[in-house]
Order: sequence, then C-alpha cells, then structure tokens
Amino acid sequence: MNMIDIISKKRDNYKLSKEEIEFFINGYVKGEIPDYQVSSLLMAIFLNGLDDDETCNLTFSMLNSGEVMDLSKISGIKADKHSTGGVGDKVSLVLGPIIASFGVKLAKMSGRGLGHTGGTLDKLESIPGFNINISNTRFINQVNDIGLAIIGQTQNLVPADKLLYALRDVTATVDSIPLIASSIMSKKLASGADIIVLDVKVGSGAFMKNIDDAVKLSKLMVKIGKKANKYVSCIITDMDEPLGLAIGNNLEVIEAINTLNGNGPKDLLDVTIKLVSKILIKAKLYSNEESASKAILEHINDGSALKKLKEMVAAQDGDNSPIFNTELFPKSKYIYEVKSKKKGYITHMDALKLGIASMHMGAGRLKKEDSINYNVGIVLNKKTNDYVNLNDTLCYLHMDKIDESIIKEVYDAFTFGESKVNIKTIYEEVD
Amino acid sequence: MNMIDIISKKRDNYKLSKEEIEFFINGYVKGEIPDYQVSSLLMAIFLNGLDDDETCNLTFSMLNSGEVMDLSKISGIKADKHSTGGVGDKVSLVLGPIIASFGVKLAKMSGRGLGHTGGTLDKLESIPGFNINISNTRFINQVNDIGLAIIGQTQNLVPADKLLYALRDVTATVDSIPLIASSIMSKKLASGADIIVLDVKVGSGAFMKNIDDAVKLSKLMVKIGKKANKYVSCIITDMDEPLGLAIGNNLEVIEAINTLNGNGPKDLLDVTIKLVSKILIKAKLYSNEESASKAILEHINDGSALKKLKEMVAAQDGDNSPIFNTELFPKSKYIYEVKSKKKGYITHMDALKLGIASMHMGAGRLKKEDSINYNVGIVLNKKTNDYVNLNDTLCYLHMDKIDESIIKEVYDAFTFGESKVNIKTIYEEVD
Repeated sequence: MNMIDIISKKRDNYKLSKEEIEFFINGYVKGEIPDYQVSSLLMAIFLNGLDDDETCNLTFSMLNSGEVMDLSKISGIKADKHSTGGVGDKVSLVLGPIIASFGVKLAKMSGRGLGHTGGTLDKLESIPGFNINISNTRFINQVNDIGLAIIGQTQNLVPADKLLYALRDVTATVDSIPLIASSIMSKKLASGADIIVLDVKVGSGAFMKNIDDAVKLSKLMVKIGKKANKYVSCIITDMDEPLGLAIGNNLEVIEAINTLNGNGPKDLLDVTIKLVSKILIKAKLYSNEESASKAILEHINDGSALKKLKEMVAAQDGDNSPIFNTELFPKSKYIYEVKSKKKGYITHMDALKLGIASMHMGAGRLKKEDSINYNVGIVLNKKTNDYVNLNDTLCYLHMDKIDESIIKEVYDAFTFGESKVNIKTIYEEVD
Repeated sequence: MNMIDIISKKRDNYKLSKEEIEFFINGYVKGEIPDYQVSSLLMAIFLNGLDDDETCNLTFSMLNSGEVMDLSKISGIKADKHSTGGVGDKVSLVLGPIIASFGVKLAKMSGRGLGHTGGTLDKLESIPGFNINISNTRFINQVNDIGLAIIGQTQNLVPADKLLYALRDVTATVDSIPLIASSIMSKKLASGADIIVLDVKVGSGAFMKNIDDAVKLSKLMVKIGKKANKYVSCIITDMDEPLGLAIGNNLEVIEAINTLNGNGPKDLLDVTIKLVSKILIKAKLYSNEESASKAILEHINDGSALKKLKEMVAAQDGDNSPIFNTELFPKSKYIYEVKSKKKGYITHMDALKLGIASMHMGAGRLKKEDSINYNVGIVLNKKTNDYVNLNDTLCYLHMDKIDESIIKEVYDAFTFGESKVNIKTIYEEVD
C-alpha cells in the first residue's frame, strides 16, 4: 500500500478501503506521509467526496490516532455538547450548569475562538482566575463532585484532527462536509460521553451557509454516532444574526449568568432548552419536551442551575464573586452607543461582520498567537425584525479606545427594510 | 493576492487570471509558497482542468521562471524535436544528423531515462567518452561548426517545471493534459528553436494511453506554440510495442547507426522521415513530403547523415571509432535467445513490460540516483503481426547475468493470436 495509489484512487473517484484510510491517517500522524501528499488527497476528497462508509472509517481512524477519554470513573450519565461555532454563542455556559443541576454529568473539553467566532475557553478565562488546565484526575473528581467541568483539549486527543485541520486551513479544503463531520465526530467520540448533542449553525456567521448542507452534515454525524453506539442528536440553528445580545468574552459570561437568573434573551433560551431537553429525555429523566422544558425553567427560577455555575467557577480556581454580582466583572474604558441613522425594520444584522468588528476591538484573535481583551465587545439593543426609529440605539460598543473604522464596520452590519423578514432560531432537528 | 484564494478559485472551477498564475509560479520558485499548497492546487487543476488561456499563461509563467536559451548566435534555422518518451525510441539520434546534413541546425537539450523509458543522454553516454556537459559557448560554436549538438539541460532552464514535475510525481497529478502540455512546451520554448516537432507517443509504453488524449495534448501544444510565435507540429505515434528492434543504451545507438547506414527498421525510419520532412518543409528546403522523403533517403544512402553523427561524437569528446564499426561497442557477457513457446501471430508485444524488463537488466533506472549498464538490453527478432512457429527466436537478451525472472517478464510481454491485428506506426498529425 502506498500513498500515491491512495491519492490516485480518490482522484479517480473510487472508494477508499478502511485499510487505506488507516494507512493514510497513521502514516500522517507518525510523520511518514508528507503534508504535500495529504493536501493533494484532501483536495481530491473535497472535489470527489467520501461516502458514508469512508467518512465513518476516517472518523474512527482519526479517533484511534490518539487518546480516548476514559470517563468510566464518572458515575451516572455523561453528556456532551458541541457547536459548530458562531458569534455570541454562549450556550455551553448556560447548558452545562442546567444539566448538572439535573444530575446529568458534563465532562466537556472546549476550544478557543479564532477569527470572528468565539470560544468557550476564552469566555471562561474572562472570569478572573478561571483555570482550564486542570489534571485529568482533578477533572474526573470535579465532575463526580459537582456534576460539571469544562477544560481545554488534552494534548493527545485526536492528533490526526489537529494536523489535518491545520493543513485544511491553508489548502482551501475546509468546507467539505465529510471532512467537517469526521473532524467534529472524532473529537466528540474521543471525549467519551454517552449522549452527544450538536448545534449546527447556519448563516453568515457560520461555517455552513445553507440549511441543506447543514442537514447533510447533521445526518452524517448522527450516522457516525450510531456506528459508534452513541446517541447523537443535532439541531440546526440560525447564525445569520448573533445568538443573544452579547458578543465578547466577559459580556457573554454576564449574559449567561443573566440567563441562568431568568433574564436571558429568547433565542439563547430557546436553543439551550431544546438541547437540554434532548439530553434529559435521552437520560430518561423526562418523557417529552414539554415536561423537560417546564423542569428546566424551574431549575432556572429556583437558582439550582446558577448554583452549578458558581460551583464550577470555584472548583476551577475562579473568583466566583462576579457570578453573584456581575457588576464586579472588569469593564472596558468606554461604552459607545451606536445610534441608528435609518428607520425601519432590521432585516439583517450580519453575524460575520459583527464578529469581525468585535475581533477588531480585541475580543477575538486573527492568529492563534494573538492575545485577547476580555472586557470589550458588542451588546445589541435590537435584533432582527425589531422596528427602529432614527437615533434609536442599535447596540453598545464596549471599547478600550474609540475607533471610527470599527464603528463603521458595525453600521455596515445592519440592513433595514420596510417589513419584517422570515427568520427562525431553530430550523431543523436531526436525530 | 494569496495562495488560498487561488486554490479556492480553481477548486470552485473558476478561471485563474494571468496574474494569479504568475503569482503562484513565481512564489513557488522563490520558495515562498509551500509544497502542500501547490499540491492542493495541482489536484484542483487535475480534476477541474485549465482552459487554453490558463494553460498558455501557465506555460509562459513557467518559461519566464528561468533562463531562456539565446540561440541568436547560431546562424540559419534552428529546429528542435521532442518525444513524450517511450521504449526503444532512438529517433533523436537519427533525426539530428539527418537535419544537420541539410544545413538545418539542431541545438538540442535532452533528458535522462527514468523507469521503463529511455533517455537520449544515457544513450549518447553509452558512446565511450561522450560529453553531455559542455559549456554554453562551446555548444553554440559546435552547432555553428557542424550543425548539431545534444547536451543536458542547463541548470536554470525552467526551474518551475523541475519543481512542479517532482511534486506531481509524488502527488498523483502527473496525467493531466494541461499540466503535461505546459511542462513540455515551457521547456521547448526555453530551448529557443524556431521549428519544434513533437512526437507524442500512445500505447502501453507511453504516458498517453489513448489517441483522443494524445490529440488533445497535441492541439494544445500547437496552440501554445502559435501564441509564442513558434512553429510547432505534432505527430502521434504508436508506443504499444517498442519502436524499432533495440531497447537499451548502446544497442539503440547501434540501431541508430544502422539506420543512418540504410539498414534501419521500417517503423523507426517512418517516424524519423515524417518528423524530418516537417522540419525541411517548414525550413522551405522542400515543398512537400514526397520530395523531402526522397532527399532524406539520399542523405542516408550517400553517408552524409551518418557523417554528421560521427562529427558530433568527435566534437563532444566521444570515441567515434564505434560509429564506423559498431562491433567496437562494449558488449554484455551473455546473449540469451528467447524462443517462442507458442505459435501464431504476435498480437501484442507490450512496450511497458519490455521496458521494465530492460530496466531490470540494468539498462534503466528505477530511481534518479541509480547507475546504468550501457551494454545490456533487448534486441527484438520479431514485431507485432509477425507469424512465429514454436522455438522461433522472439528476441535476444543482452545480459550480464542470466536472470530467470527477467526472462519470464519478457515472455509475459508477448501475446499471440490466430490473426493479425490492426496497428499503425503513425496515427495522426496535428499542426
């Protein structure tokens, strides 16, 4: 078996065998197959595709390229949640405490933000002292004790994905459904949970630009999950506008706390409730969405969900006083009010443009090495389909310096019209 | 402009601009664009193609990546000839002396053999003392003095092609018509001749496996030539069986000498006459193929063509006594007679298999670094459509050691049948 034959086979649109896929992944991880052969194969895969068998085999080869988390020492049912990434997506910060309040365990490994998309780890690190690098033993113990922990990916988790992702990023082979599915699913399966819920974002601020592709990706991931004997369920949600109102690290943590206090924006709450319901039903705690939703709202209202967030912050070396009083979070120097220069219905608020503006303020990274300003970002005052008059406040920019070019970027993100548009928060469910 | 956008564009089947192609070639030659991005683009080109404009722009960008030979100090009309490579192809050794005997200049840079295909440089070096590394000045002077010289490619000729070819070879992106056309034509244009004739081989022993592809490639190369204001003409010839009877370095030189002595095999003579006629007509020495062919045979019969070979060998430090008497060439230790175990018409003698068997004897290289045995090879005693009886000699193996596995390879190259098959030496002409 050799790599040139494998590339030729996919180039000529033949199906790769399990052994060929393993040969390629193992050889690449061992450093025996050079980048230039892998990128040639990736482009052939991008253009000719992989069928479901090939995608499953790729996922399992990637999964087996490194360590698989052993969560057997955690009692009870373990759930995991993943989002394909977007702007203002703080769902994990709300969902984790809620499911822990029901006794379902969340032993979650998260990622950092890059470009216009935020990352849960950065958001958590905006809480003073919060430690995402705790040992494996401490991680397991914490989940057993309080029901949840969110940490950074351990070094040896799916090394094949780290290599492939870095290469895809620079060879124009990112947007391939089988490659995305195998990347996400290899990491999720390596994380060891029993129940996996996936939030597939669609729209200007997301990877996936249309619902059809998102449905294809979701079906493929559910199929891979079944092959691995795991329950996987996907929801396809809007990322044409940001989720919730806050964009930026501690601004999003504050919004998550507000949501756990019963004052969350409707779209954020809807997505969270939908995902948590799926987990609770699969965990056999509730039999249907209605009863699950009712229970979730009770856990918000009685403070038991927020209590879990406080416990996690304390357990991971964080200062949890700002969780009790969000006024204690550090603040940006200025809050600039963006006032509407037009009137009418907001027909689009471009998540990508707002994410980039927020990154330019310092809330995100252009390159992996960049550092982050936790206190800056955008808080929306209006959402799509709201009617605005001239000089109504569209949003607040939390900035350390007033930058006219960023203000212009924010204005450019808004489109106005004479009537409402048809949008939904949750488009589809695939399980 | 950046490489990821260029890859994405070709991946999505858009046309690359002249500037984008130049950016890619210049960046790659300068070492600013890594192999893994180029191989990804090459696979996108392989699968989505390049149109004629893009192929011309690629050719000219490659051409301009290095030195272009200045043949202006050579008086008269300069011709060049190229074959896409095959088994037993010693046409250049016959053609060069003939055209020089008519006063048309051949200032040719040739290549080495690799795999089952032979190379003109290796064949010339089988003449004791022959020097393919002469200085540029000496090269020009020699062509002015005696009318021909064949040397190795100068180091800085089309560096983009050297890089791209090496990368294509290991990334399964060799067999792409626009990539082949730009590779051949960038080198031929850089060689500086006025008249370029190309012999495109088709069949088991060639790059191109079918005539349709060979016609496409030929048309494309003629088009590129026109854009560069050069006369380019292609013939498409058979490489399903070896050309002529001899395979192996000094064995092929001997066959070339025999041909210049009027004792050449018909197929070799037909191909040579066709190519030389095109050159002589384009050089306005003859008005049609009939008169050109007649004159060529006269130059063979009167010894004026062979005289040019002797002059070239002497001018390039070679011992030309074996040209006068081929018995003086060093010989292999053994000559093994391969006798037919079947009777019937030879319906196929596989050029690829015979080329590989010859390589295994030591006449060719598996890797660039391998050394060559100039005295070994195969001399056919029969050709396709000859009728053979049991124990008739099929061919002679000139070997330094009797190797049963090679003998078996040679037997496996022959297929027999009850009737003749339809084959031609020259399939098409494209100009």
